[in-house]
Amino acid sequence: MLADDDGYRLWLRYEPVADAPRRAEYRAAFGELVLGERIAGTLATALAELERGLSGLLGEAPPARPQINKTAALVVGTPASLPMLAKLELAQDLAKLGDEGFLIRQTTSDGVACTVIAANRELGCLYGVFHLLRQVQLGRALTELATESAPKLRFRMLDHWDNLDRTIERGYAGFSLWDWHKLPDYLDPRYEDYARACASVGLNGSVLTNVNANALILTDTYLRKVAALANVFRPYGVRVYLTARFSAPIEIGGLASADPLAPAVRAFWREKADAIYRLIPDFGGFVVKANSEGQPGPEDYRRSHAEGANVLADALAPHGGVVIWRAFVYSNTAGEDRHKQAYDEFVPLDGKFRDNALLQVKNGAIDFQPREPFHPLFGALPRTPLLAEFQLTQEYLGCATHLCYLGPLLNETLDSDTFVAGPGSTVARVLEGAVHGGHATGLAAVSNIGSERNWCGHPFAQSNWFAYGRLAWDPALRADDIAEEWLQLTFTQDPRFVEEARRMMLESREAVVNYMTPLGLHHLMAWDHHYGPGPWIDQGRADWTSVYFHRADANGIGFDRSATGSNAVAQYAPPLRERFGKLESCPESLWLWFHHVAWDQEMTSGRTLWNELCHRYDAGAVAVSGMRSTWASLAGAIDGARHRHVSDLLAIQEKEARWWRDACLLYFQTFSRRPFPEGFDPPRGTLAEYRARRDRFVPGIRERG
Amino acid sequence: MLADDDGYRLWLRYEPVADAPRRAEYRAAFGELVLGERIAGTLATALAELERGLSGLLGEAPPARPQINKTAALVVGTPASLPMLAKLELAQDLAKLGDEGFLIRQTTSDGVACTVIAANRELGCLYGVFHLLRQVQLGRALTELATESAPKLRFRMLDHWDNLDRTIERGYAGFSLWDWHKLPDYLDPRYEDYARACASVGLNGSVLTNVNANALILTDTYLRKVAALANVFRPYGVRVYLTARFSAPIEIGGLASADPLAPAVRAFWREKADAIYRLIPDFGGFVVKANSEGQPGPEDYRRSHAEGANVLADALAPHGGVVIWRAFVYSNTAGEDRHKQAYDEFVPLDGKFRDNALLQVKNGAIDFQPREPFHPLFGALPRTPLLAEFQLTQEYLGCATHLCYLGPLLNETLDSDTFVAGPGSTVARVLEGAVHGGHATGLAAVSNIGSERNWCGHPFAQSNWFAYGRLAWDPALRADDIAEEWLQLTFTQDPRFVEEARRMMLESREAVVNYMTPLGLHHLMAWDHHYGPGPWIDQGRADWTSVYFHRADANGIGFDRSATGSNAVAQYAPPLRERFGKLESCPESLWLWFHHVAWDQEMTSGRTLWNELCHRYDAGAVAVSGMRSTWASLAGAIDGARHRHVSDLLAIQEKEARWWRDACLLYFQTFSRRPFPEGFDPPRGTLAEYRARRDRFVPGIRERG
Repeated sequence: MLADDDGYRLWLRYEPVADAPRRAEYRAAFGELVLGERIAGTLATALAELERGLSGLLGEAPPARPQINKTAALVVGTPASLPMLAKLELAQDLAKLGDEGFLIRQTTSDGVACTVIAANRELGCLYGVFHLLRQVQLGRALTELATESAPKLRFRMLDHWDNLDRTIERGYAGFSLWDWHKLPDYLDPRYEDYARACASVGLNGSVLTNVNANALILTDTYLRKVAALANVFRPYGVRVYLTARFSAPIEIGGLASADPLAPAVRAFWREKADAIYRLIPDFGGFVVKANSEGQPGPEDYRRSHAEGANVLADALAPHGGVVIWRAFVYSNTAGEDRHKQAYDEFVPLDGKFRDNALLQVKNGAIDFQPREPFHPLFGALPRTPLLAEFQLTQEYLGCATHLCYLGPLLNETLDSDTFVAGPGSTVARVLEGAVHGGHATGLAAVSNIGSERNWCGHPFAQSNWFAYGRLAWDPALRADDIAEEWLQLTFTQDPRFVEEARRMMLESREAVVNYMTPLGLHHLMAWDHHYGPGPWIDQGRADWTSVYFHRADANGIGFDRSATGSNAVAQYAPPLRERFGKLESCPESLWLWFHHVAWDQEMTSGRTLWNELCHRYDAGAVAVSGMRSTWASLAGAIDGARHRHVSDLLAIQEKEARWWRDACLLYFQTFSRRPFPEGFDPPRGTLAEYRARRDRFVPGIRERG
Repeated sequence: MLADDDGYRLWLRYEPVADAPRRAEYRAAFGELVLGERIAGTLATALAELERGLSGLLGEAPPARPQINKTAALVVGTPASLPMLAKLELAQDLAKLGDEGFLIRQTTSDGVACTVIAANRELGCLYGVFHLLRQVQLGRALTELATESAPKLRFRMLDHWDNLDRTIERGYAGFSLWDWHKLPDYLDPRYEDYARACASVGLNGSVLTNVNANALILTDTYLRKVAALANVFRPYGVRVYLTARFSAPIEIGGLASADPLAPAVRAFWREKADAIYRLIPDFGGFVVKANSEGQPGPEDYRRSHAEGANVLADALAPHGGVVIWRAFVYSNTAGEDRHKQAYDEFVPLDGKFRDNALLQVKNGAIDFQPREPFHPLFGALPRTPLLAEFQLTQEYLGCATHLCYLGPLLNETLDSDTFVAGPGSTVARVLEGAVHGGHATGLAAVSNIGSERNWCGHPFAQSNWFAYGRLAWDPALRADDIAEEWLQLTFTQDPRFVEEARRMMLESREAVVNYMTPLGLHHLMAWDHHYGPGPWIDQGRADWTSVYFHRADANGIGFDRSATGSNAVAQYAPPLRERFGKLESCPESLWLWFHHVAWDQEMTSGRTLWNELCHRYDAGAVAVSGMRSTWASLAGAIDGARHRHVSDLLAIQEKEARWWRDACLLYFQTFSRRPFPEGFDPPRGTLAEYRARRDRFVPGIRERG
């Protein structure tokens, strides 16, 4: 029986290489670790990681030596840290790799066989070390190790919506890792393990605090705590960012206004930035949610978002910092289709932001739904540096308990063709600067990490942290390859397990789409805590209700965003606006996003829309039952603890998928007035029962007891 | 170098016995485990614990066999579970041991050497197994194993002030262990480890929820979650209790009133109890905080506490449950000395409570201060079953970071002589039923357990969970013996380490008393969150301020509770009322608790009161510096992780002890108008600076960001 694993080690388990000849091959090749004479900072971190990794993988770590002796060596360094690299003629190759890239070569130096990890900067060496250790974990042959790799995106950010009281907005894996009360004096060893995990997948920025920000984080007391974390993260190349509350000049600066054009406000931000950089020389910058969902912002003073962002950008610029301005903005009163508002707000501002002001655009135009078409701002801001924002924490994807691998969702958005400069202008290429030229751009994701022992709560939720990091490094990677690699690193190399679990992962997101919001439906969740179905929500602010978005009536269902409706399709470049705008050319998976469709409309399946809706909801629930059986068949392939954990959670997911299916279809049936299709397994409860359910104390929101 | 230990295993580490001959001796003696034929429930748990323990301690677990074979055996059972025990003629000894006691004997059965753990009930067997494993961990000789042990108190409770959103009122070790959202379907393995730890020190009751209660816990949805926890705890003999909000009949019962004498209210509680016992057949009962600090209660309907408690007691009685009614009651408006109110309220009610209604009395009359004289209710309620309540979580003892071993505080209260039936009527003997006859009584303690990996946050805080459990089993145990045992189990048997660390532990509580509240001072902490000094607090409800309690003025300092003051001393039996009532006979450690004393009053040290106050505050701070040096000298004796953790926290404690010393003395000096004594290290800050400090987001209270 395999020893129980609590999941703490993530994909960095460093268990002994099972294949004995392969292990011997590695041992022979990595006879000594050569990183030069004076090893400090990130290089020391790279050496420590190598020693930790190889001692686990190979049984013992090779000795570290200042230079090559007689045995085969693993050589790691930059031209500056290791003069012997000069002899290996890597300069030309290194030139292409920038500040963070690395290369791995098998070569000889004075007759000694060397595996060389070389980079222009020490951080590249660390990335190379993590890459090499991953290959060893996967049991790859030495002959396959040679590679060159550099990140395609500059900012690879993890955003924590963590409050100062350690609750996490929309957090489902416990509470915040940051123990503010004991900082800066006590450093939980977990801080370093967090930075290790981030660096191991190439993430280089961590936003410590909630976008719904508290100005207190910018006071001296807290900045000293932040600096202590930054010191831990620094050798791993993870820069610290903070959310800046736009009204901080009032709340902690003693000013009467936060008007970005007021000299005192400019001075406040300048002095604040100076103070931060005195404590944290490599501080990344500010993330700002302004004039959105009640947050203060420049529009409170009739200033534009660009005017607001630029004041912060100017304060940060002398220190090399950036301001990341969220484009998730919509009017404080329901008015124009929410889908359109960010585009309308920001397109006129294109070119008005400073070079170090980046606009952070959610993957879709509404709010991290199970499926959204890509946000029309991608490609529409040729002169503005962009970040694309995803949500790893499962606010709309089952909260704490649903297995939903997001690799396919990330691929789907990044692969989407905007057509802004002709075919092939994918979101990924827009972000890479290949469409409009070389802005500094990147990805951001709302973290799914918390204080639970296994970091992400659901054992499979770790895969979303992993996949996100890998895709931020290279948006061209494929979700299925990443899933396979993650499974091997995290669980076992047993091919049957990997194949079956990979299939589960790849099907999981579509299952969620089907049992929650098939065919382009969106925003059907319960009020406020967003846990479970609430398609009947019709009270409160209109564009926070479900009925606003699904618009079901006796004729049909769906939000008409074509030219006959809100005309949001016009925000997409041709030919997309035509393709989305006509039912015949619109992908069926987005029909109800862009069109109000008649219940009896025939679909390619031959079913009517109503019957297809029933079919999809059912297929989603059935898929979860299938995942549950698959998983049951894998008992014994991995340790009992993690197998039981996933089994228990799949049982919850199965129950909840059925709850979504039954509640939504019973509700929509009150409009369609059509029977369930023949053979359809009837709902288990009544609509009244589902509507009466009140879930309390759902994680991720604060509720007064 | 010793491997890092994250503290998760507590005192149940089961590391290999270091002494090889001793290990061989155990191996020979425990050649097989004999627990009989059909092993289920608590016996199965006892076997599993033996296998786990011995496999760690001895390298491998002996085989489990249904009956004795040829080798030496470890035999565990009750007369019912293991018929062979009959031959050993244990009946007479077992008769004295009750339902939970056990005995251990070295004997022979048909010529085979046996170590026998026998008990009347299976739970006794489990307690015996934990006892034996503890002796093996401590390396005791086989010849020392024979023992008999039975708990002196029936209710041995751990009270969790855990809210349904997983925050913990006054919790400093993370958040609640109970993951209500995923219950009952997902059972965190930690639930079982919690029950194991409790059972290992003899605790048999767990109150899952905050005394400031939410009625929702009594709804069917939550009761099913509670039942899932009860199922996990059951084999460990840990019964589940819930806090009952007195107004639950209104909040979840649909009634207009919670008047305990209204038939509908009686019916509500009866039906609620019936429903609970259908789900949880061994449910322990309800804990109630009523008419105290804003909680609803019977006085809202002009009914007495006894009338309120009895309705719940009647509902629980048919099922064998109890109601535990807290005596921590004081008027909603400041009036009579808080010290006196509980006594005045409950003494007239003595004899009016049902047999299954227990009154839970805090160790002192105010509120878990670093030092309080014992509560005058102990001994004053001859006809009422009592529990004494302690607080392990460090609300008034440095919150998250101070090392404060509570063994001495527990000894001090339990050893206090009430004199109610002449000398020797100690609080412990009152609780044991030795003074007024055999009521069911016990101890309760507010838990210091949370979601942090090491359970209690501070590595040394685990000792308070351990010591409390051991003392609840036997209130006569000595704090120093418990400390020594705990250190050996938790860290190492290295005698130098154990001796030095034991000394730190034993001095730690007096250090806290000195740097926070020496000479009988109390209630000087900061407003609301209670972190840090706040002797200047004078706003808000009078008896929640500091000035109400210290009463410093130009003449002197202290609360006159003698006959010339509030006369609280009259609540103690003679000769205590005289002893406390006169300055000459009052222990100096309680002077300012019972007397207003002149600044120039001479003390046995020869110092004036003012100089003695300075001396004590300084001695407290100096003691922490001493602990810090001692601890530094112990590096290498234990693993680096826990050593660093304690080092970092001691550095915080040193800083904060100094903060208390300097802030309090500067403040009191504004009244005494006397200089600091010669050679006194002057305060590092100014009073204005200390008063201006505002700590935010202190753990243990909820604050809206």
